Amino acid sequence: MIYDISYPLHPSIQVYNDKAAKRPTFQTVADHVTGSVHETDITINLHTGTHVDYPLHMIANGDTSDTEDLSLLIGSAKVLDCTNVGDVITKDHLVSMAIEEDDFLLFKTKNSFSEHFLFDFTYLSADGAEYLRQKNIRGVGTDGLGIERAQAEHPTHKTLLSNGIVILEGLRLKDVEAGLYHMICLPLNIVGVEASLARVILTDD
Amino acid sequence: MIYDISYPLHPSIQVYNDKAAKRPTFQTVADHVTGSVHETDITINLHTGTHVDYPLHMIANGDTSDTEDLSLLIGSAKVLDCTNVGDVITKDHLVSMAIEEDDFLLFKTKNSFSEHFLFDFTYLSADGAEYLRQKNIRGVGTDGLGIERAQAEHPTHKTLLSNGIVILEGLRLKDVEAGLYHMICLPLNIVGVEASLARVILTDD
Repeated sequence: MIYDISYPLHPSIQVYNDKAAKRPTFQTVADHVTGSVHETDITINLHTGTHVDYPLHMIANGDTSDTEDLSLLIGSAKVLDCTNVGDVITKDHLVSMAIEEDDFLLFKTKNSFSEHFLFDFTYLSADGAEYLRQKNIRGVGTDGLGIERAQAEHPTHKTLLSNGIVILEGLRLKDVEAGLYHMICLPLNIVGVEASLARVILTDD
Repeated sequence: MIYDISYPLHPSIQVYNDKAAKRPTFQTVADHVTGSVHETDITINLHTGTHVDYPLHMIANGDTSDTEDLSLLIGSAKVLDCTNVGDVITKDHLVSMAIEEDDFLLFKTKNSFSEHFLFDFTYLSADGAEYLRQKNIRGVGTDGLGIERAQAEHPTHKTLLSNGIVILEGLRLKDVEAGLYHMICLPLNIVGVEASLARVILTDD
């Protein structure tokens, strides 16, 4: 069984803060009416739908896609049921969960059930990120378009990214039960950027 | 060992027929000089670098990404050494190769060794495509930007796509020896399009 946990990309996809300028545009540049092939151009922000953040996104002069380690993106992943935590996942929530070194955690929250942007989307607190750093996990994925909201100084992003913990945003987890899976996350191979669009699948462990 | 056989995407990447209009553009829309985040927009044709073609690309009213079957894109793959076949891979070349039902074939040709577009790139002939259809393979991948050149009526594409055989274009195979591998090809999850940008990796079988 393959679970596709990537957000389908289309011109009316939900985007951060509902800003129209962040929506992707699709342009048909050749079709079968006027020629013999069909081709599309898209214009898209690299933080649209399912994507990986690299350190440069939040850290001046930070690492880019060029230092990506694919081996972190392929392996076990734990889907955690956070549908009842409300607006913010804190250290207090995390200490009660079975979290171990090298885990890749995927937070299933209310975000997965909304097709429009939730201004009160569930996010990870700064103390939650610090707890995960201490636990030495591999990465964290969320079904929100951000791992945090607009906290001043972006402490959640910075704690994770400056410690080599992968951030994966914009997942769709509504059809996946909590539990252990094998994850394959393959971002597009784009040179020197701060994020990349990704397809992510889970298979039964 | 993970072999990344995806073409790195950047603004000066080689494109079909060297047409400048087909090159992707990257725009930094936020940075750490004027703000606290770095973000990039890209504009890109869906046939740039490593990508999957769906039937609509060459067949009017053909199927799109919406009917994609991921199970065809994950599994065994055979890298075939075609570096000495010259300009075109024909049925005569293929009959001497060990090709079996359900194979996903990856043609390693001179194309993999050029960073600029080869107007005489190696492609698959119409009779070669017909032979592969009879063999009932799963898919075919090439390190050229097209599985054929501009043959009238696009017979190679049409024979493959109208028979459910996946076409994967724009691979980079220069660092991969001929032989059997496990392939994972994950195209972006884009709704209703004729092609999608993909990341593709091989691991030892």
